[in-house]
Amino acid sequence: MFEFRLKKEDTKSCARTGVFKTPHGNIKTPAFMPVGTLGTVKTLSPKELKELGADIILANTYHLYLRPGEKIIKKLGGLHKWTGWNGPILTDSGGFQVFSLGQEKGYVDGKKTKISVKIKDNGVEFRSHIDGKKHFLTPEKAIEIQNDLGADIIMAFDECAPGNSSRKYAKEAMDRTHDWAVRCKKTHKNKNQALFPIVQGVTYKDLRIESAKFMAELDLPGIAIGGLSVGERKKKMYETIEIVESHLPKNRPRYLMGVGTPEDLLECIERGMDMFDCVLPTRIARHGTFWSEKGRHSITNQKYKADSKPLCKGCECYCCQNFTRSYIKHLVTEKEVLGIRLLTIHNIHFLLNLMRQIRESIDDSKFSQFKRKFLKQYGHRQGK
Amino acid sequence: MFEFRLKKEDTKSCARTGVFKTPHGNIKTPAFMPVGTLGTVKTLSPKELKELGADIILANTYHLYLRPGEKIIKKLGGLHKWTGWNGPILTDSGGFQVFSLGQEKGYVDGKKTKISVKIKDNGVEFRSHIDGKKHFLTPEKAIEIQNDLGADIIMAFDECAPGNSSRKYAKEAMDRTHDWAVRCKKTHKNKNQALFPIVQGVTYKDLRIESAKFMAELDLPGIAIGGLSVGERKKKMYETIEIVESHLPKNRPRYLMGVGTPEDLLECIERGMDMFDCVLPTRIARHGTFWSEKGRHSITNQKYKADSKPLCKGCECYCCQNFTRSYIKHLVTEKEVLGIRLLTIHNIHFLLNLMRQIRESIDDSKFSQFKRKFLKQYGHRQGK
Repeated sequence: MFEFRLKKEDTKSCARTGVFKTPHGNIKTPAFMPVGTLGTVKTLSPKELKELGADIILANTYHLYLRPGEKIIKKLGGLHKWTGWNGPILTDSGGFQVFSLGQEKGYVDGKKTKISVKIKDNGVEFRSHIDGKKHFLTPEKAIEIQNDLGADIIMAFDECAPGNSSRKYAKEAMDRTHDWAVRCKKTHKNKNQALFPIVQGVTYKDLRIESAKFMAELDLPGIAIGGLSVGERKKKMYETIEIVESHLPKNRPRYLMGVGTPEDLLECIERGMDMFDCVLPTRIARHGTFWSEKGRHSITNQKYKADSKPLCKGCECYCCQNFTRSYIKHLVTEKEVLGIRLLTIHNIHFLLNLMRQIRESIDDSKFSQFKRKFLKQYGHRQGK
Repeated sequence: MFEFRLKKEDTKSCARTGVFKTPHGNIKTPAFMPVGTLGTVKTLSPKELKELGADIILANTYHLYLRPGEKIIKKLGGLHKWTGWNGPILTDSGGFQVFSLGQEKGYVDGKKTKISVKIKDNGVEFRSHIDGKKHFLTPEKAIEIQNDLGADIIMAFDECAPGNSSRKYAKEAMDRTHDWAVRCKKTHKNKNQALFPIVQGVTYKDLRIESAKFMAELDLPGIAIGGLSVGERKKKMYETIEIVESHLPKNRPRYLMGVGTPEDLLECIERGMDMFDCVLPTRIARHGTFWSEKGRHSITNQKYKADSKPLCKGCECYCCQNFTRSYIKHLVTEKEVLGIRLLTIHNIHFLLNLMRQIRESIDDSKFSQFKRKFLKQYGHRQGK
């Protein structure tokens, strides 16, 4: 059912292209996956995502479990049918969201409160961010929910320790993550869904090596790297990826979770990563920001008021083909939904198009030139 | 440049079908015009409006004059080019918005204040709802702005007196409106834009007759009826339309401003009206409400939580062809933009489709049967 075929390996770096076959279609790697936390990539329709050329989108177990509940989605035919997106879907396990809750204060019953998260070896007790109701999520439960949701790729339940964790805590969290990955594998029976385990270990070199080896030995269809891009320095993140990469099997797709920016995508593809997800293109659009080959720009800048140019010259997205900066600035200033829609379309197109160019450059043995040229123009230091 | 050709006249009522030719395309009448106050029909792209089969959309002079300013829009090629909508556009004159300001309290510089509107025979002085800045709008200025915006149909500057106005005030406002209409006609030179005058007179029979005759004599390409659906009783509104209609030329399209609901559209088409605009389909969508042939419904109702049916069985809109009530309820509950988009698509489709059916029924000499059948199922009393 699942097959990962490498197409081309770069001779000067770990970059590679490939195709990951899933029941709902093929994913060309390196791949960027737009995030649809609640079963919708914010502001876009599935038709638009298709037109944008997205191979796969993400959805979130934690959110859909709480509302409307995985049983309803299962009853209505699963995520694909329910959301109207019939391409591949990946669901996160909910682990990251549960542990994020522990870092935050939230509102429960209208009152600001520390949302308690209790981590036990058996699983995690937490309170819903919606109504404060208590829930207990175990590796088994996380798989059962994801089985009901029916995504093509599902994630093992993991503990994502913060970037500043002590070695002792990082090791405990990693050990639990290993134990839970085994339990997830044991629970997961559905051959139509590929289970990916998640390498943890914060930025401790030995822990990351241990975790990479452990997960590799589970021999699952793909492997994810979690717990990065969570506050550590960029240099540390890249180093950690290099260490992990050298202990991962070549013949499995590697999914770097929660990354990223255009520059991070290039750096991490160079270090052998194949799949990525990030909320940035949709989130920055909501704040009136768009990407061009020269960096990030705010459309509400007064200089765009009577600007008859598209967001990016030569860009082939629906936004750039049909609208001026002047009109988009107007829409965003007036808080008109179409403004955010158009910026979202452009930003997702920008990242998907970047991935297309990267894949082509790898296939043509020109990745390093492409990377150098892109970063020079983009402004290397942006977002660091 | 402009031509109104009657196609069929109902023998049992004043209903009729026709085609109004404009520089950007033909408008099949009776026509419903979706409202795009700020140059965007809320949440939709021009592509979607085209797919929905809208013949014409509205934009608002008052809002676009204040921001970004008509000069910018002119510089960028006019409303059609700027908004990406290349079908016919109608701009309201700003009169209605200015007088509405006088009825409301608003925020100026962050403080709640009575927004002052001073009506003089020469024009209207008002403060912007955005920054409190003083403006003076005259009939000449309203036309000049609309010439710059470049819509196919533009409206004379009028004074829309409230539904509860005294006869004395209603007459003064009407006299000013007549005087202003003459000044608008004199100012307007662009042959590519059709100027419509607006019949006023509140619900005073003699005033309405006087106004209808006055406007008819101006011999402009179309005539609008304003100042209705502003608080008076439905029965009074229908009666007033009947009176006005009998004094309007047959060979001009009649535009009833700010109407309406499905039942009002039917009642007013029966009374000889040809064109309509209303914010309802977009506004109720933002509140989670959709139309079906049985009336209005709120999608956030718990009964839809696991409902696998489309909003309306047999409906051919993108929303009903692809999504379940369950998914749309979820999106609206979670405040996801796609939810409002889908409801907006459905509601506009619903009204445009109703208009198609009405036109067919008139052409087939079956209008009264169609109206009776529709209202019986819809629940006649809704929205009254």
